[in-house]
Amino acid sequence: MLYLVGLGLGDAKDITVKGLEVVRRCSRVYLEAYTSVLTVGKEALEEFYGRELILADRDLVELEAEEILKEADTSDVAFLVVGDPFGATTHSDLVLRAVHAGISYRVVHNASIMNAVGCCGLQLYSFGETVSIVFWDDDWKPESFYDKIKKNRSMGLHSLCLLGETRGWTSGWTSRGRKVYEPPRFMSVSQAAGQLVVSTGLTEDTLCVGVARVGAEDQVIRTATLRQLGSCDLGPPLHSLVVTGRLHPLEVDMLRLSAAPDALAHLEVEDSSTS
Amino acid sequence: MLYLVGLGLGDAKDITVKGLEVVRRCSRVYLEAYTSVLTVGKEALEEFYGRELILADRDLVELEAEEILKEADTSDVAFLVVGDPFGATTHSDLVLRAVHAGISYRVVHNASIMNAVGCCGLQLYSFGETVSIVFWDDDWKPESFYDKIKKNRSMGLHSLCLLGETRGWTSGWTSRGRKVYEPPRFMSVSQAAGQLVVSTGLTEDTLCVGVARVGAEDQVIRTATLRQLGSCDLGPPLHSLVVTGRLHPLEVDMLRLSAAPDALAHLEVEDSSTS
Repeated sequence: MLYLVGLGLGDAKDITVKGLEVVRRCSRVYLEAYTSVLTVGKEALEEFYGRELILADRDLVELEAEEILKEADTSDVAFLVVGDPFGATTHSDLVLRAVHAGISYRVVHNASIMNAVGCCGLQLYSFGETVSIVFWDDDWKPESFYDKIKKNRSMGLHSLCLLGETRGWTSGWTSRGRKVYEPPRFMSVSQAAGQLVVSTGLTEDTLCVGVARVGAEDQVIRTATLRQLGSCDLGPPLHSLVVTGRLHPLEVDMLRLSAAPDALAHLEVEDSSTS
Repeated sequence: MLYLVGLGLGDAKDITVKGLEVVRRCSRVYLEAYTSVLTVGKEALEEFYGRELILADRDLVELEAEEILKEADTSDVAFLVVGDPFGATTHSDLVLRAVHAGISYRVVHNASIMNAVGCCGLQLYSFGETVSIVFWDDDWKPESFYDKIKKNRSMGLHSLCLLGETRGWTSGWTSRGRKVYEPPRFMSVSQAAGQLVVSTGLTEDTLCVGVARVGAEDQVIRTATLRQLGSCDLGPPLHSLVVTGRLHPLEVDMLRLSAAPDALAHLEVEDSSTS
């Protein structure tokens, strides 16, 4: 059996009881190491789980999946993923390979930013399509994310923006013909806010929510205008940004809990227009 | 401290290790009893947690929140919610009351259908606004959900449809002036499919995915046309339905794993048009 186990968002103890039982009884346990990041490292997980973890980099998962699936038809193998297992397409690929090799699989779900972002006080069913904002360089300034934010806003919906490339880009090849991946780059809320103002029709007064390390002890939620977020420092990764749509009065009340002083004035306007 | 603890979707062991520690050390533990449902009952949870749980019905949470928050400034109180704590607006209300009473709060996240639905093989960032489909009766046939599905589909996005009223409706008053809530009604995938075909521009051939008891041992995923889903039986609650948008080839491959024979033909068409 192949188990795909979500680790949640914060630290070692965010695994579910069911997930921990799976980890402790499997013959091999892989830790997916390139699509996301916990606030603790592999060693902390190993100590808490009482198990050695095999780091699964992109090459191992994409090119040598058979290594992961070896003997999974007769023994149990776990594949640990930060957040929920179906956050990244690569994991679908692993599931398909397992099924086609006659190996059963089971999923142990957990929180991901896709649902945990509700902690900022915005209702999950008022979100539109999720948006990925990537780093720009001199030659490459994709703006497709902006159309999505615009569409979401035109329908009154919030936009969850996932920030930066955490999957790694190819930067070359080894002498043995393997791809070399650059380390993941994490975009901060202030970098994202800066790109959004430069590139898009969003004004500097657009009300947004920056979140950092959701689910961790030191998580930060900051409701502010794009201008304010452009100069904020929410600390270490992982950051995400929400561009608000139409606000329900209860959402306004929740956002007040995390609002910067200037943002409060904007919330008052929202409140009077919706109530 | 007020702890809002997500229980996840399946059974008692879907709580996180962090959540279980909170439950075991809090002075009072409430179980939110009306917005969702686990596959196990209160007794099974109490046995596994080794704690007595106080059932929090709608009245207690909405009208007597001060009862829940009593002494939470000096001791720890836990409020357990199936799925993730911010799936329902009532929980925002409880947070606001806590904050205004000077009580700190912390959230222990978990999976909810909003992210766990990714197990069907459709990518979470290709979903649009989430839709609620309610029961029709002779006098009341709201169709607002259809506009949302149509908009999502026009942008190529999938629509997660949450089915039925799980929050309970007022059906009368007790002699002490309290509202009497009807028990939650759970809509099946076949009932939802039937309503969608009657009411909307969706054809009977629209490719959908019915899911039941996601995260539980006996979860079911069924990819089929609306017509086929209209006569399927996916077993006990909780059910949800996804109306597909534009499919990525990897999504097509994943849907094949759960496809009814007739749906396979539709998937072949999707595959050839996208690849």
